[in-house]
Amino acid sequence: MSEMLYEGKAKKIFTTDDEQVVLVQYKDSATAFNGQKKATITGKGRLNNEITSLLFLKLKEQGIDSHFIKRVSETEQLVKKVTIIPLEVVVRNVAAGTLSNRLGIEEGKELSTPLVEFYLKDDALGDPLVTVDHILELKAATVKELEILKNKALEINTILSSFFNELGIRLIDFKLEFGKDNEGQILLADEISPDTCRLWDKETNEKLDKDVFRRDLGSLTEAYETILAKLGGHQHV
Amino acid sequence: MSEMLYEGKAKKIFTTDDEQVVLVQYKDSATAFNGQKKATITGKGRLNNEITSLLFLKLKEQGIDSHFIKRVSETEQLVKKVTIIPLEVVVRNVAAGTLSNRLGIEEGKELSTPLVEFYLKDDALGDPLVTVDHILELKAATVKELEILKNKALEINTILSSFFNELGIRLIDFKLEFGKDNEGQILLADEISPDTCRLWDKETNEKLDKDVFRRDLGSLTEAYETILAKLGGHQHV
Ligand SMILES: Nc1ncnc2c1ncn2[C@@H]1O[C@H](COP(=O)(O)OP(=O)(O)OP(=O)(O)O)[C@@H](O)[C@H]1O
Ligand SMILES: Nc1ncnc2c1ncn2[C@@H]1O[C@H](COP(=O)(O)OP(=O)(O)OP(=O)(O)O)[C@@H](O)[C@H]1O
Ligand SMILES: [Mg+2]
Ligand SMILES: [Mg+2]
Repeated sequence: MSEMLYEGKAKKIFTTDDEQVVLVQYKDSATAFNGQKKATITGKGRLNNEITSLLFLKLKEQGIDSHFIKRVSETEQLVKKVTIIPLEVVVRNVAAGTLSNRLGIEEGKELSTPLVEFYLKDDALGDPLVTVDHILELKAATVKELEILKNKALEINTILSSFFNELGIRLIDFKLEFGKDNEGQILLADEISPDTCRLWDKETNEKLDKDVFRRDLGSLTEAYETILAKLGGHQHV
Repeated sequence: MSEMLYEGKAKKIFTTDDEQVVLVQYKDSATAFNGQKKATITGKGRLNNEITSLLFLKLKEQGIDSHFIKRVSETEQLVKKVTIIPLEVVVRNVAAGTLSNRLGIEEGKELSTPLVEFYLKDDALGDPLVTVDHILELKAATVKELEILKNKALEINTILSSFFNELGIRLIDFKLEFGKDNEGQILLADEISPDTCRLWDKETNEKLDKDVFRRDLGSLTEAYETILAKLGGHQHV
């Protein structure tokens, strides 16, 4: 019997017969600004499920282990159950969004080197930016774990940036989550999709990610379909 | 001829006959919340000038060089002119204020180890918290400088915490600024006063710092006079 373990803003997590495995169901809901802006967008769940699956497979090919096992339906995938490390690991290649707003760096400015940031996963606190010393004080991770997270995040950035680049897309920034499996191994988890990446068309700088929703720039599903098509995924029109 | 170089929220800076020396004039104005709350408080300039002078002298005795040269009037002191490094260096021993609010750590909780934070000195951006990688990207300081700042800040914390402790006061947290003199030496600069420290009575936890103003807890000058008296300074009543 399957039981819902967690319902988040974008996904539901269900138990399966295997205690080490959970089913992730991608929802058709879009949220932004820590849940203040909300909408139902038909097809979004399918698109993010497909895109995440393709990206986790691509990373696997390049030696990056993740929680991903397999996609089992249009909106569902099986993943290894992990204990999520309560940090959002953000990698930025180009200034945008929060970085631009907080530090006054013009959106679109190429950073001198990829920047890794940690945000505390805590909706009630609005996922605040944290320093290494904050993380140690909060015991959210150890120094050793933070090194692993930072190195893995940068490695993933190298792989995904070059992959997207070949498809005519600039990977501006993205958010990762990691978890520990039952053997204590740190695995890439959660999702990698246009909900969690900024993706700009290389020629036109057109935004093909959740900023379309955040900033009311047009059809979110059209943008996500464009990404899926470039990734070689099945195209629904 | 003396010329005003800068007027800040709490102090005015004037040139002197010596190009390497500036006069700092402490004002009777109190501001909080990035300047949103304001008041004129007679006596505050004199109190902060005296308290800062005593603390810089105390630090000097313990081997910490600062910009401080000498107090020259009730509200004025001569200091070495420096180029301020655009970072506010905050040291925290106990959770309070922003740390409590941002990370949900209860005000008054002793931290497991003194915490050093860097904030970008930029009023227009509201002095945002920055990570080491942000600072390097902004070229606000180098890795080596950040190490010096962190180590000096922790050393100053050790000295001031034990000094205040002997006087029956808990040093909860404080903000420092550093600058470079004309030889490139990094010197402690700006001020150290109840405007820039949180100071709680050891017995009663009564607040004897700018939180009295921020949170409307009573007479700011009475609190600052208490600190000055404990430091052995001249008492005006
Ligand atoms: N392999 C996994 N095992 C267990 N939990 C996971 C796994 N992968 C992701 N999760 C967690 O499942 C939830 C996914 O739901 P969703 O993305 O909708 O959450 P959310 O609304 O973003 O909220 P949160 O702030 O918790 O991420 C997240 O809490 C995520 O950390
Ligand atoms: N030795 C020094 N040489 C040059 N400038 C100094 C020195 N010590 C402090 N300053 C600078 O002088 C100013 C003091 O003014 P005040 O504290 O009123 O500024 P403020 O309103 O807090 O604004 P700011 O955000 O610039 O600190 C600050 O900008 C401080 O960095
Ligand atoms: Mg999520
Ligand atoms: Mg100041």
